[in-house]
Amino acid sequence: MIKIYGKNCVYAAIMANSSMSMVFLSEDIIKSDKNIINILKDRGYKYTILSKKKLDVEFPFQNQGYAAYRENYEILDEEYLSNLPKEKGRVLILDGIQDPHNLGAILRSVDAFGYDLVILPKNRSVSVNETAAHVSTGAIEYTKIMYVNSLNTTVSRLKDLGYWVCGTDAKGDKLASEIDKSLNLAIIIGSEGFGMSKTLVNLSDFLIKIPMKGHVNSLNASVSSGIVLHDLMANED
Amino acid sequence: MIKIYGKNCVYAAIMANSSMSMVFLSEDIIKSDKNIINILKDRGYKYTILSKKKLDVEFPFQNQGYAAYRENYEILDEEYLSNLPKEKGRVLILDGIQDPHNLGAILRSVDAFGYDLVILPKNRSVSVNETAAHVSTGAIEYTKIMYVNSLNTTVSRLKDLGYWVCGTDAKGDKLASEIDKSLNLAIIIGSEGFGMSKTLVNLSDFLIKIPMKGHVNSLNASVSSGIVLHDLMANED
Repeated sequence: MIKIYGKNCVYAAIMANSSMSMVFLSEDIIKSDKNIINILKDRGYKYTILSKKKLDVEFPFQNQGYAAYRENYEILDEEYLSNLPKEKGRVLILDGIQDPHNLGAILRSVDAFGYDLVILPKNRSVSVNETAAHVSTGAIEYTKIMYVNSLNTTVSRLKDLGYWVCGTDAKGDKLASEIDKSLNLAIIIGSEGFGMSKTLVNLSDFLIKIPMKGHVNSLNASVSSGIVLHDLMANED
Repeated sequence: MIKIYGKNCVYAAIMANSSMSMVFLSEDIIKSDKNIINILKDRGYKYTILSKKKLDVEFPFQNQGYAAYRENYEILDEEYLSNLPKEKGRVLILDGIQDPHNLGAILRSVDAFGYDLVILPKNRSVSVNETAAHVSTGAIEYTKIMYVNSLNTTVSRLKDLGYWVCGTDAKGDKLASEIDKSLNLAIIIGSEGFGMSKTLVNLSDFLIKIPMKGHVNSLNASVSSGIVLHDLMANED
């Protein structure tokens, strides 16, 4: 079970028909949001109305009057790789993301730019926790997430499946705009502190850089993910 | 005075010759970072060595063994607008950012993509606080920040100074790639919850959209800022 909170998160869970054992609403919200009770009844969700004070004790974050006990998010196992699209597939690999704010913001981009899957290494990543869910503002309901034992093994398997691997690195020699968007692409973003592992750099078919001209010369991991995912979004045609 | 912490933040403040009344280091850091004491002495900074435990009490965040009392960051007033570049100037306007994580990540992008100034409205914005400074990983030392009473007045003044105003909105009719990069540009990013104000939409010369195809159809504010700042970065030539 995971506690979710915030209007966007709870609404997204309802719209995705996700399993929630209880939805909590504050007394003042049901006055301003006249529809929510009907929506919950229509879809068969149990709900409890609490004073704002009690809701804030149980969900002491920016709950905006909405919260729920939700079933844990589904985590896919490697078998799912065989279901990936055979054309213009898009996979994002996060090589060790530690900050749940970054993970949440990245999941929004993954949804917004139509990516098929996010892959993280089991032992070097933040889990899909309450903060990540909240920061994703509900996008987490629509993203497919996989934790794997070895990124190296998974990346090799993706190559066998016809995916081209795009690493990202300040020393890269390609711009994202130079990559053929008709390919199946697996994009790797490095960790906040250390970038990509050397093995993954060596496994990459392309090494992309984001041009910069500042002093600090690195971006927040969710920002660099967003830029690359945007630039490599598959065209509709 | 502001408390700063984390290796990148403290090093950036040293390299920028910022005023710090005291730098704090943990006992274990001075063993692994042999140079730091010499650097501090060379530049005339006072320092104190503390046990890791004591440092964690005074700076109970991810201090990584480095912290300092730093003079408050310089906040520019509107007079500074007349110093803006007359060619290929780049200004970022944040129409009501509340989350210090977002502000910190945005400041990294502002530095990385060579923007000249960030403008925020006084009464509807997060302040440049410890979290924003930390998340900026030192980029804050190299960014020029202005808080103004009225964004509408400031935007009008920027137009008088020869700046073209690029709003960002899901209903926009231009892609960033369609904007002439040789212009002086002032880019407006809306707040996390509400986007841009109507008045600012009306004041915009261009309205840019970021193409998306997901369910949630909006990005984290620091991610959308990063994408637009990257796409509109001024060329070197």
